[in-house]
Amino acid sequence: MPIYKAPLEDMRFVLHELYDSTALAELPGNAEFTPELIDSVLEEAAKLAETVLFPLNQSGDLEGCTYENGVVRTPSGFKEAYKTFRDGGWTAMGASPDYGGQGMPIPAALMVEEMLCSANVAFGLYPGLSHGAYVALSHAGTEEQKQTYLPNLVSGKWSGTMCLTEPQCGTDLGMLRTRAVPNDDGSYSITGNKIFISAGEHDLTENIIHLVLARLPDAPAGVKGISLFLVPKVLVKDDGSLGPRNGVSCTAIEHKMGIKGSATCAISFDDAKGWLVGEPNKGLAAMFKMMNTERLSVGIQGLGIAETAYQNAVAYARDRIQGRALTGTKAPDKQADPILVHPDVRRMLLTMRAYIEGCRALAGWVARELEILHKSTDDDAKQAADDFSALMTPIVKAMFTDLGFEIASTAVQVYGGHGYIRDHGIEQYVRDARISMLYEGTNGIQALDLVGRKLPQDGGRLLTRFLDPVMEFIEANADNAALEPFLPPLQQALEHVQVATGFIMENAMSNHDEIGAASVDYLRLFGLTALAFVWARMVAIAAPKADEQNGAGQFYRAKVQTAKFFMERLLPQTGALLAAIQSGSATMMEFEDAAF
Amino acid sequence: MPIYKAPLEDMRFVLHELYDSTALAELPGNAEFTPELIDSVLEEAAKLAETVLFPLNQSGDLEGCTYENGVVRTPSGFKEAYKTFRDGGWTAMGASPDYGGQGMPIPAALMVEEMLCSANVAFGLYPGLSHGAYVALSHAGTEEQKQTYLPNLVSGKWSGTMCLTEPQCGTDLGMLRTRAVPNDDGSYSITGNKIFISAGEHDLTENIIHLVLARLPDAPAGVKGISLFLVPKVLVKDDGSLGPRNGVSCTAIEHKMGIKGSATCAISFDDAKGWLVGEPNKGLAAMFKMMNTERLSVGIQGLGIAETAYQNAVAYARDRIQGRALTGTKAPDKQADPILVHPDVRRMLLTMRAYIEGCRALAGWVARELEILHKSTDDDAKQAADDFSALMTPIVKAMFTDLGFEIASTAVQVYGGHGYIRDHGIEQYVRDARISMLYEGTNGIQALDLVGRKLPQDGGRLLTRFLDPVMEFIEANADNAALEPFLPPLQQALEHVQVATGFIMENAMSNHDEIGAASVDYLRLFGLTALAFVWARMVAIAAPKADEQNGAGQFYRAKVQTAKFFMERLLPQTGALLAAIQSGSATMMEFEDAAF
Repeated sequence: MPIYKAPLEDMRFVLHELYDSTALAELPGNAEFTPELIDSVLEEAAKLAETVLFPLNQSGDLEGCTYENGVVRTPSGFKEAYKTFRDGGWTAMGASPDYGGQGMPIPAALMVEEMLCSANVAFGLYPGLSHGAYVALSHAGTEEQKQTYLPNLVSGKWSGTMCLTEPQCGTDLGMLRTRAVPNDDGSYSITGNKIFISAGEHDLTENIIHLVLARLPDAPAGVKGISLFLVPKVLVKDDGSLGPRNGVSCTAIEHKMGIKGSATCAISFDDAKGWLVGEPNKGLAAMFKMMNTERLSVGIQGLGIAETAYQNAVAYARDRIQGRALTGTKAPDKQADPILVHPDVRRMLLTMRAYIEGCRALAGWVARELEILHKSTDDDAKQAADDFSALMTPIVKAMFTDLGFEIASTAVQVYGGHGYIRDHGIEQYVRDARISMLYEGTNGIQALDLVGRKLPQDGGRLLTRFLDPVMEFIEANADNAALEPFLPPLQQALEHVQVATGFIMENAMSNHDEIGAASVDYLRLFGLTALAFVWARMVAIAAPKADEQNGAGQFYRAKVQTAKFFMERLLPQTGALLAAIQSGSATMMEFEDAAF
Repeated sequence: MPIYKAPLEDMRFVLHELYDSTALAELPGNAEFTPELIDSVLEEAAKLAETVLFPLNQSGDLEGCTYENGVVRTPSGFKEAYKTFRDGGWTAMGASPDYGGQGMPIPAALMVEEMLCSANVAFGLYPGLSHGAYVALSHAGTEEQKQTYLPNLVSGKWSGTMCLTEPQCGTDLGMLRTRAVPNDDGSYSITGNKIFISAGEHDLTENIIHLVLARLPDAPAGVKGISLFLVPKVLVKDDGSLGPRNGVSCTAIEHKMGIKGSATCAISFDDAKGWLVGEPNKGLAAMFKMMNTERLSVGIQGLGIAETAYQNAVAYARDRIQGRALTGTKAPDKQADPILVHPDVRRMLLTMRAYIEGCRALAGWVARELEILHKSTDDDAKQAADDFSALMTPIVKAMFTDLGFEIASTAVQVYGGHGYIRDHGIEQYVRDARISMLYEGTNGIQALDLVGRKLPQDGGRLLTRFLDPVMEFIEANADNAALEPFLPPLQQALEHVQVATGFIMENAMSNHDEIGAASVDYLRLFGLTALAFVWARMVAIAAPKADEQNGAGQFYRAKVQTAKFFMERLLPQTGALLAAIQSGSATMMEFEDAAF
């Protein structure tokens, strides 16, 4: 049976030591969120994840969701778990106190989210989508809409969805066909078919609030003619109680590679009653507020699954005995040594670990900036935070999910043939992780967002929000002996980013294909460099404490050694990525279409 | 619905143009295997693969095998397909005419094998294991054993297995517990439990010949005390007809991530009657004859699945319209451009293609050397062929299967969210490909075989069988203008191999952990360099024909462009791999066990 234990020590390290949570507690509204309170919240979340959600992960995969006559049933136990989840107030965690939320600082909320994803990513999608709907509505909704819908979304009494995709339109929302016709009473009649709607129909809540992209009759063609509508599954009466069913039905659920406990629905809107959210024809902007939140969350899915995969691989490597160490017997009392003695097994485990802890630290940084963006009163700090989080969102989404899949597959490799057997529960992580590279914008689309939109934005200002602190750190630590082995590789990776950026900017002006040709490799190059930077920062904190002869000393020593492993073994990829980027678009574009 | 069409043009290119099949026809016993005959065999195989096996691939995955009271049923249609397969003589393809085989040259047989794996890898495992059993028996069996069992294995009337793994012993066969006690009649009583036995029980043949590793009562401990036994499911009478059931039973089948149409069995031997194959306590050597054949075949599984994944990704990229080209509309008559216009989609497709065609060419080289080894009368040529194929076997097994999985996952990425849906049949390739990195020795074990065994063997002679032809080629083509852009990257990759080899050899003497620390990265570095070499050789042939204004011209131009893509985009990884190797084992070995 798989195991999972929330990595609280590392989470506390990131929240408190790496990013100084006491400083965040000084932001308006955060006074009660002392490090002590955050720690106790994390402990409660760990209990929930470990004892309520994780035990349903494997059974949820085996059983899956079922569909019958428009009714979707979640796997056994999900309903009870959702009730526990709601009763514990976890749906309200990240929401504003104005609507019954707890206003938890984003860095802490993100750690809780990681635990949910580690424990049961399929379950986590239900409250996850609700939170996305909450974000979009709270940004773009009218006061009446907010009062009617947000408290019940926040309390988890109702859930939410985002309905974008249609059979003919995924990435290219300009091809969207769902129509919205105005009614006399100010509402709209929505008609169209949506697919791939996560949590589109289920048995966890009494109502589901769909946020639906559709076209008004007079809408311009393409993406400039898309509006956002709120369409409840069950209509809500003026007194807030539930009225009749709306013209919304689930026509099928998808049979998928993984996340089988999550209902992925085809939803048909048939003259369904809906209300405009935000301005006509400005639906994409409102939806993107939701999308950006979701993109970070999807990145965290990659991280969360990777953590569980890692923990199980470690446990198996300790437990499984097979062969002897290359340097001679290590466990003479046993018939063979645990496979943890083999360098290649350690290489796999440290690769997983170096990525996971690096990603957690990077996510913590992005979350911190988002918290500043949402709560600071300092305009400069808010602008900087907005820039940085916009720059990093596609990187977190794409790199974390690519790595999540790689790490899940590495865990299978540690298990050998046993990893391929369903009973052991490890291959599920590979299947569950694979979706995160695809939804909320494929990872290729994330890379285009980074290179085509975020890099040139505001004269390249966003990029400086990353480059400047790295350069400042390198300068400030020039004489820091503990960092001596770490700064040269960081410096070199940074140069690779700078050279690659210059190459793309120079060539893309005359040929836009250079953007697409470079984008995916550039995102990984940038992401690895960002990981190198957070690793160097972690070393700066950990190295002075690495000599302590206690458990904490071991934690800090492991940090320094993992950082070393990252720099030596993983960061050198940046050179290969730079070379690939510099080869440009010519070869791939000249290849004759018919010859593929 | 997924598609598959055998890549006959490329197969002919590899067999005839790259490696001169007419020269192979001059080996003893090969006279009838003219290029024309080989082509017609390939065409027949293509028909079988495309029209009989491929249509059962997706249904076989959905239905899987079933187990009831010791009886295993293969998915619907498998029995009929196996009959067609047998009737067509395909089980006899690679076997010796002495036992009813066709004695087909190995390069051609390997292309047929690739087609089977592309069409239905789960089905292909049944005849594949039989061929493995054939190889082991024909090497180590007595004349009587051969006469009794080989003709029926070759005709496909019976099938075979290899029974190595037990719950406590996978890689480390020294821990094997199955016992063999001698009977008075010269037979042995075999008792023990084996797991993960592919084709261990099924409904395709009337008998199954198990080749079983077990210990004699007086056997020394560890791997030096393992013997090989032939244990038929149904005992064979002196007249060759079937007698009573033997004490062999299938106690369960595994529920796996993929290859669900292949029965992976737990087999219990309960005083089963068996016969010693080869010398007592020398079972591993005999089994390794089978293993090496199987390892090449498993590599071809990676290649075969990758080919189908590629073809489907191309078809989807042509068909799916979404968005507009970055450089402006390409299909003004459509609502959007096919996604094939996007550089990143082309990058993904060319990455798949560059690996696939490179691997096919490399496999063709190994197959050619194996053919020389088996049929040549020239001792020097045989020795060289033996060396080369021994060196390359772990690379083909590990790199091809790693890439097969990566490529299958890339195909899913080209499909976007639709790739995650089971109905579309693409995610199956990811699941089916994953096993090949694990069985017949995990890819980590392959890398240890390469670095720990093959490199130092015979004073490094095996390595020269690769390095010498590469250096000769570079020298011979120094003035070849067509190769100008290709030789410098090849030269550099070769240097990376040489530096890495020197580093390992120097350091491994004092510290064996250096072998394991370097092995996986070294295997990939070596493999990429081998691909670079076969790509350069293909360019040497294709470049002069690339200007022809016909279909063939397009084929050759595509070869040259794909080679360019490989050199520019993929080969630069060798630098990163070298850097990782040179970081050595210290960091991973110093990491405290308790800190994982």
